[in-house]
Amino acid sequence: MSPSVLFWLTYVPCLCLGLLCLLFVSFWSSHWHGGFSWDGSDLQFNWHPVLMVAGLVVLYGNAVVLYRVPFTWKQKKHTWKLVHAGLMLLVLLLSVLGLCAVFDNHRFFKIPDMYSIHSWVGICTVIMFAFQWLLGLAGFLLPCSPLRFRSNLKPVHVWMGKAILILTVASCISGIDEQLFFTLDGIIGKPYSSLPVEAKFANSLGLLIVAFVLVVFGILSKNNWQRPETDNESVPLVLKENST
Amino acid sequence: MSPSVLFWLTYVPCLCLGLLCLLFVSFWSSHWHGGFSWDGSDLQFNWHPVLMVAGLVVLYGNAVVLYRVPFTWKQKKHTWKLVHAGLMLLVLLLSVLGLCAVFDNHRFFKIPDMYSIHSWVGICTVIMFAFQWLLGLAGFLLPCSPLRFRSNLKPVHVWMGKAILILTVASCISGIDEQLFFTLDGIIGKPYSSLPVEAKFANSLGLLIVAFVLVVFGILSKNNWQRPETDNESVPLVLKENST
Repeated sequence: MSPSVLFWLTYVPCLCLGLLCLLFVSFWSSHWHGGFSWDGSDLQFNWHPVLMVAGLVVLYGNAVVLYRVPFTWKQKKHTWKLVHAGLMLLVLLLSVLGLCAVFDNHRFFKIPDMYSIHSWVGICTVIMFAFQWLLGLAGFLLPCSPLRFRSNLKPVHVWMGKAILILTVASCISGIDEQLFFTLDGIIGKPYSSLPVEAKFANSLGLLIVAFVLVVFGILSKNNWQRPETDNESVPLVLKENST
Repeated sequence: MSPSVLFWLTYVPCLCLGLLCLLFVSFWSSHWHGGFSWDGSDLQFNWHPVLMVAGLVVLYGNAVVLYRVPFTWKQKKHTWKLVHAGLMLLVLLLSVLGLCAVFDNHRFFKIPDMYSIHSWVGICTVIMFAFQWLLGLAGFLLPCSPLRFRSNLKPVHVWMGKAILILTVASCISGIDEQLFFTLDGIIGKPYSSLPVEAKFANSLGLLIVAFVLVVFGILSKNNWQRPETDNESVPLVLKENST
C-alpha cells in the first residue's frame, strides 16, 4: 500500500473522530444541561467543555497534522505556516473564552476557582499553549528571528506540541469525570455509579477524545508522512527575498 | 554541550521526578489514608494509586527510555531487550495487583465497578499494555518471529508505547481528582474546594506525574540519543547463531 493511501486511511478517520468529539460534547451540553447562554449561569458553564474540546482538542489536533496533508506540499511552506499559526490563534481564543465561561460561572455562584487537579492541569495546558504560540511566532514567522534560534527551537516546538496534547487529554478526562460526579449525584435522577445514559454518553466522549489524540500521535510518528524539506525552506522569507 | 552531557542533564531529573512520584503517592496513602492492608477495606484500596504509579508511570517510563542510556550500548541489544521485557512484565504484575486492590475493595463495600471515565480509560490502559507486552514478546523476543513481522511491528510498538503513557497520565489525573472529591467531601474535615494540605499535596503529585511523563517524552524525541543500530541487531539471535 502506498504511503499516500495509508495516510488518507488514517487522516479521514482522524477528521471523523474530531467531528464526533464536537458533536458529542455539544449534544452533552445542550441535551442534558439545557443549552447555552453567557449570563454567568450554568448555561454559561456549558460553553466550557464545548470550547475546550473544539479548541485544544479538535482544532489543535488538526492544526498539528496540517503539514502532513500531501496537497499542502505543493504550495510554499510559508503559506501553511501562516495557516498553522492562524488556526493556533483561533485555538488560543477558544481556550481563553472557555476559561472565561467557567470563571464567570464560579463568580456568579461564589464557587472557589482553581482548586482541583483538573483545573491545575487545565491552566498549565493553556499557559503552555500560549507560550508555545508566542515562541512559534517569534521563531518561525518573524523574519528577524536568528537562524540559530530557529533551528534550536524546532525540536522544542515539536516536543511542546506533543506535551500540550498530553496535558489536554488529561484535562479533558478529569473534567468529564468531575462534571459527571457533580451533576449525577443521585439527588435528582440516577447517580453516576448506576451508569445512566448521560454517563455512558459522556464517558464515550472521553474515549473519542483519547482515540482522536492517539490517531494524531500516529500521524505525527510516521516520518515518511512529513512534508519533504527543501534546503532553503528553513531560511526566513525576508532573507530569501534579500538574496534574490 | 555534548549530546551525552545533555542526556544526563535530562535523565537524572527524570529519575528524581520518578522517585518523587513514588514518595508522594506512598506518603499520600500512608499519612492521610491510614496506610496499607490486603483485607478488602479502604486500606487495601490505598494500594491502588501506589501500585499504578509505581508500575505504569515510574517503572514503565524508566523501561521505555532504557535503550537511551549510553552505558547499555556497550552490551548486546538482546540483553537489554530481556531487561526491558522483564521490567515490563513487572509493570504488568503491579498493574494487575493495583486493579485487584480496587476490585476487592469495591466488592467488600458493594460499590459498582467500572462506571467512571477514570475506570474506563484506566482499564483500556492496562488492556493495551498487556496486548503491547504480548505483541512485543512475539515480535522481538521469540526467535521464530518473521523478520517482516518484526520490522512492521516496530513503529506500531513505538506508537503504542507512547499511547500507553498518554492513557496513563489521563488515568492518574482523573484518579487523583476522583479520590480527592470522594474523601475531601467536607463532612469530615475541610472540602476539596478549600484546598486543604492533602489536596495541595495530591494535586502536586499529579503535576509531578505530568512532569515525569513529559521528560520521558522529551528523552524519546531526541533522535541522537537513540541506541546506534548495527546492521545485524535486528536479526533474531537464533538466526545469527545458525549462520555462524
